This record gives sequence, C-alpha cells and structure tokens, in this order.
Amino acid sequence: MLDHGGNLDVALSRFGGKAEDWIDLSTGINRRPYPVGDLQPHHWNALPSRTDLKCLHEAARKAYETTAPVLAVAGAQAAIQMLPHLARARRARILAPTYSEYAPRLMAAGWQVEEVGDLDALAGADLAIVVNPNNPDGRRHDPIALLAMRLLVDRLVVDESFVDAVPGHSLASEAGREGLLVLRSVGKFYGLAGLRLGFVLGCEADVAVLAGMTGPWPVSGPAVEIGRRALLDREWALATTSRLAREALRLDSLADSVGWRLVGGTPLFRLYETGNGRAVQERLAGSRIWSRIFEGRAGWLRLGLPGEEMEWLRLGAALSK
Amino acid sequence: MLDHGGNLDVALSRFGGKAEDWIDLSTGINRRPYPVGDLQPHHWNALPSRTDLKCLHEAARKAYETTAPVLAVAGAQAAIQMLPHLARARRARILAPTYSEYAPRLMAAGWQVEEVGDLDALAGADLAIVVNPNNPDGRRHDPIALLAMRLLVDRLVVDESFVDAVPGHSLASEAGREGLLVLRSVGKFYGLAGLRLGFVLGCEADVAVLAGMTGPWPVSGPAVEIGRRALLDREWALATTSRLAREALRLDSLADSVGWRLVGGTPLFRLYETGNGRAVQERLAGSRIWSRIFEGRAGWLRLGLPGEEMEWLRLGAALSK
Repeated sequence: MLDHGGNLDVALSRFGGKAEDWIDLSTGINRRPYPVGDLQPHHWNALPSRTDLKCLHEAARKAYETTAPVLAVAGAQAAIQMLPHLARARRARILAPTYSEYAPRLMAAGWQVEEVGDLDALAGADLAIVVNPNNPDGRRHDPIALLAMRLLVDRLVVDESFVDAVPGHSLASEAGREGLLVLRSVGKFYGLAGLRLGFVLGCEADVAVLAGMTGPWPVSGPAVEIGRRALLDREWALATTSRLAREALRLDSLADSVGWRLVGGTPLFRLYETGNGRAVQERLAGSRIWSRIFEGRAGWLRLGLPGEEMEWLRLGAALSK
Repeated sequence: MLDHGGNLDVALSRFGGKAEDWIDLSTGINRRPYPVGDLQPHHWNALPSRTDLKCLHEAARKAYETTAPVLAVAGAQAAIQMLPHLARARRARILAPTYSEYAPRLMAAGWQVEEVGDLDALAGADLAIVVNPNNPDGRRHDPIALLAMRLLVDRLVVDESFVDAVPGHSLASEAGREGLLVLRSVGKFYGLAGLRLGFVLGCEADVAVLAGMTGPWPVSGPAVEIGRRALLDREWALATTSRLAREALRLDSLADSVGWRLVGGTPLFRLYETGNGRAVQERLAGSRIWSRIFEGRAGWLRLGLPGEEMEWLRLGAALSK
C-alpha cells in the first residue's frame, strides 16, 4: 500500500500511546468537523433509495454551484479507482508532484503514465490529471487556463478535493462540458473522512458510465443523510471558510517563529521547508502530534490545522521545545 | 436501473403515504436489526486505518469460521461490480433465475453470459455464478457439489448473501482455494443495509487484485466499527438464527391460511405462488405493506419477515381483508 497521511496506526506502532492521545495533523482533514447530528434507524437499516440519492445530488449541485450531472461516490478515492476504466488505456499525464494514488492506479490499468511539471505539458494526453489546489504544495491553476487545457487533451480530470476552502478556484460550474471531470470531496473540508463521500461532476455520458461502475448503492445511508445536511448548510461552510483562512495564517506564523519557510498550502493544510522533515516529525511525535513527510523531499513537512485551542497550544509547546 | 426490492420510493409514489407509514417487506433485510450502538467521533472524522480494517477482517473470519483471505467491500453489490474485471471477459454462466444484477454487470464488461437452470450446466464456464441459498426462490446447493463444480470451471463465485441464517450451507471455510470466491453480506442478516458492508473471501491472489480495485478505504468508519461488533456478537447471531427459523414458519402458516403455496425461501424471505402477484401486491399496498413481484412470474410474491409483533398483526389483518 502507498504511504498516505491519516495512518495514525503507523505513529502508534512507532511512538506508542493510544489513538486518543494523538493530534493527527498528517492529513488535510478539518479537525473541527461538521456536526454529525442524529440519524434515524432507516439510515442504517434500509438501502438508500433513488429518491435519497437524488436529494443528495441536488444538495451537491447547490453547494458546488453547478447544474452539471453529478454522481455520489464513496470518497474522491473511489472516483480515482474508476477513472482508469472510463476509456481505453493510452497516454495519461499527471501534473506532479501530487497525490500519490493517481499514477499507480492508472499504471495498474495499463495506462502509460507521464508525470509533468507544467500545466502546458499536459497537452496531447488522452487523460490529464490536475489536482487544484494541489496536494501537497497548494499550487493553484487559473480556471481559465484549465478550461483551455481541456481542449488540448481527450479528457481532463480536475481533482478539487481541497477547493472547498477557496471555492473561487472551482471549475464545478463548467463540469457539464464534454472532456472535463471534476472531483469533489466531503471528507476533508467537512472533516468527515470516515463517511466516505465525494462526488464526480461531468458530462452526462461520463457520469452515466461511472454510475454503471458504482452500481445502485454507491454510498451508505448515513453518508446520504449527513452529506446532504452538510452540503446544504451554507452558513457553516462560510464560517468554516473564514476560520480556516484565519487559522492557516496562525499556523504560518507559528512555523515562521521556528524558522520554517512556507512552500505552499491550502487553508486545510500547509507545507513547510523545515530543513529536516524526518527530525521534525520525530520531535512532534514526541509530543503525540503526527505530521506528514515526503520521500525525496527531505526538508518538507506537511501539517493540517489544529482544531480546538488546546490543540494549538500543544502544537505551540511542541514547537518551542 | 434494474428493479430491486427495497425501493420504497416506488411504493410511495404509486400508493402514497410517508416512508414511516410503510412496512417494507420487499427485501430480505432483517427487520429486527443489530443495534447500532454508540460511535466515537473518530469513526466519522478519520479515515479508517489499516489496523481498523485488519480487525474487521479478523472479525469476519471468526464469524464466517474461515482462515481464508478476506476483503471488506461496500456491500455484496460492490463485489458484484468488481467481479467482471477479475479476468478477461469470456464465457460466464449464471445459475438462474437469481439476483438480477449479475447478468447485466457481466454483459456490460464484455462477457458472453448464459443463464442455466442446473448446477451441472455451469461446467466449462470461465466464470460461474451461484447464489446459495438462491434469491428469490431459496434453492440450496450441497457444499460438496459446489466444491466439485469449482474443478469444472475457471472460477466459481458463490454468493452467500442469505446464508447467515443457514450457516451450515456456507463454503466460507473452503474459500482459500484457488478458483473459488465467496461473497458475504452484512446488510441482510444483521439488518444493516444502509451500512454498505460485505466481504469477499477467496484465494490470496484474487483478494489482492480485488483490494487493488477497492483502494485503501473500501468502507466507512461506522461500517468498520459496527460491522466488527456485529460479527463478533455470536450470541445475537444464534438468537437471531433461531428466531428467524421460527418466524419463517409463522409467515408460511399465514400464507397457507390464504391459500398461497410456498415456492421456497430462506429464513429471511419467503417466495409464494399466490395466483396473481400484482393483485396481492396492490392489496397489501393498500395497508401500507410493500412486497416484491417478478416479471414473467405472474403468481410469485416475495415477502421478507415482519419485525416487531405490531408488524405481524398488520400483515395478518391485511391478508384477511
């Protein structure tokens, strides 16, 4: 299996403690999550109905401000698993470095995969992948430039897993166009990664093919209900967006105070050049704070934002040790 | 989309009422479900860890009395979506009539599909599908005969979605053998269809390929936790098995009293020859009880078992009208 953030069991086995002792900042999952609220028995006991799914899709279209066809999937990862099978395997290009799951999934399905460093270098691909904003470095691409690139490739996938906190960068409103697929995630911004809920937005034909792949019950009853509530809660989203923007700066200033340089990030996570990522990771682990480092980038450290004030204080104390 | 049981919204749109007014007997989902219990925030907020999944797999192996490799999937349906992609599409044979999802999924992936009426007629297939006990007619196959058939086909899939209530018929203990895949469902026996949880048991190589298809987070955090608890609760399973066996007879005697003939069934659902399935479905719908009828089998009606005593009384009253 690939290395991901969020594998707290690695931290536990290396450094000890119980899961509840740790602050997991190794992901970009919001640590002040949308409140789950109450569920009715039928959310657990019955199959989600077609009507339930239609309501969820409608909520997603509202939240993402689009009229494009949409399909609920069990997290953005579920979409990544299906993408390689949307067309005959040919040449795929991925704007890299980025989320580590794309290349191996495509290669396993027979695609010839090339990682490129510039948006322009995607041109000519049969399938092009852009994560926007990018994980782990937060690199952003102008929606206009992405729309133009769509015309130079067979199919452009824009993974917007981290766009919720910077919604002006989303291409969701354009997702009905042929040759463009937009992926959205509920797990990260809403802090509900365990729910396994995300969406694919695309043209009717692509969404129909993907719906055939997911089958009739792509997500759980609780995901249908809680996801719908969360997506329709505009007030929570606005308050969270402004909180995350504010607190990202707080994290940057903490990092600055210990001499780290900001490489990039989104309001959900920050990537710093620390000089020695592994050493910092181990130092933070000593205070039961888990972070993410990267193969081949010895100085990088990625940190999600702490949640409640106590977590900020613990991080501050750990950094000043 | 195919016709399934469990689509109560069809009943609502045709006959009115609110979902909570209805008793949905159109499925084989246990209406006295395993109690969900409390969840911790991290089940919703964090990605299920590899350790969590290992514990779930261990619980499944214990419950299913097997040492075979096992993979959690988002319901048996998720396994059905993946099966066509386990090998190059060639000749598939399905022991029919059975669950309506197999044939179209296989055909969509390029398989040449033949439905056969006898177990022996599966011989020679590259992929053979047997639902045991069968849905909707409850037909059962001797595990020994199935093991023999495994040697006469390239790969035998035994869908045991309804075997929990008749566990002696399970092939789970043999599932480590090459060329045999066993599907299990948590949704039906445990009455947790909204959870989207099932398992594939098979040889190491097949399970590894399927794990590559599901990706790292195949099921939700609540499914991991509640599924594990349910599978380890031997006492609940035994009590439920004996209750279902008893109550299946109660339903049969109710059916007998209105002149229906038992076609077959499992302790989770019964299939009756009623003379006119559509007319009976409409009559029951008048009392807000939803049932399942079948294209091309005009007399058939399938009923799941009512849950609490009040539901039995309502069914009895509806039938005696």
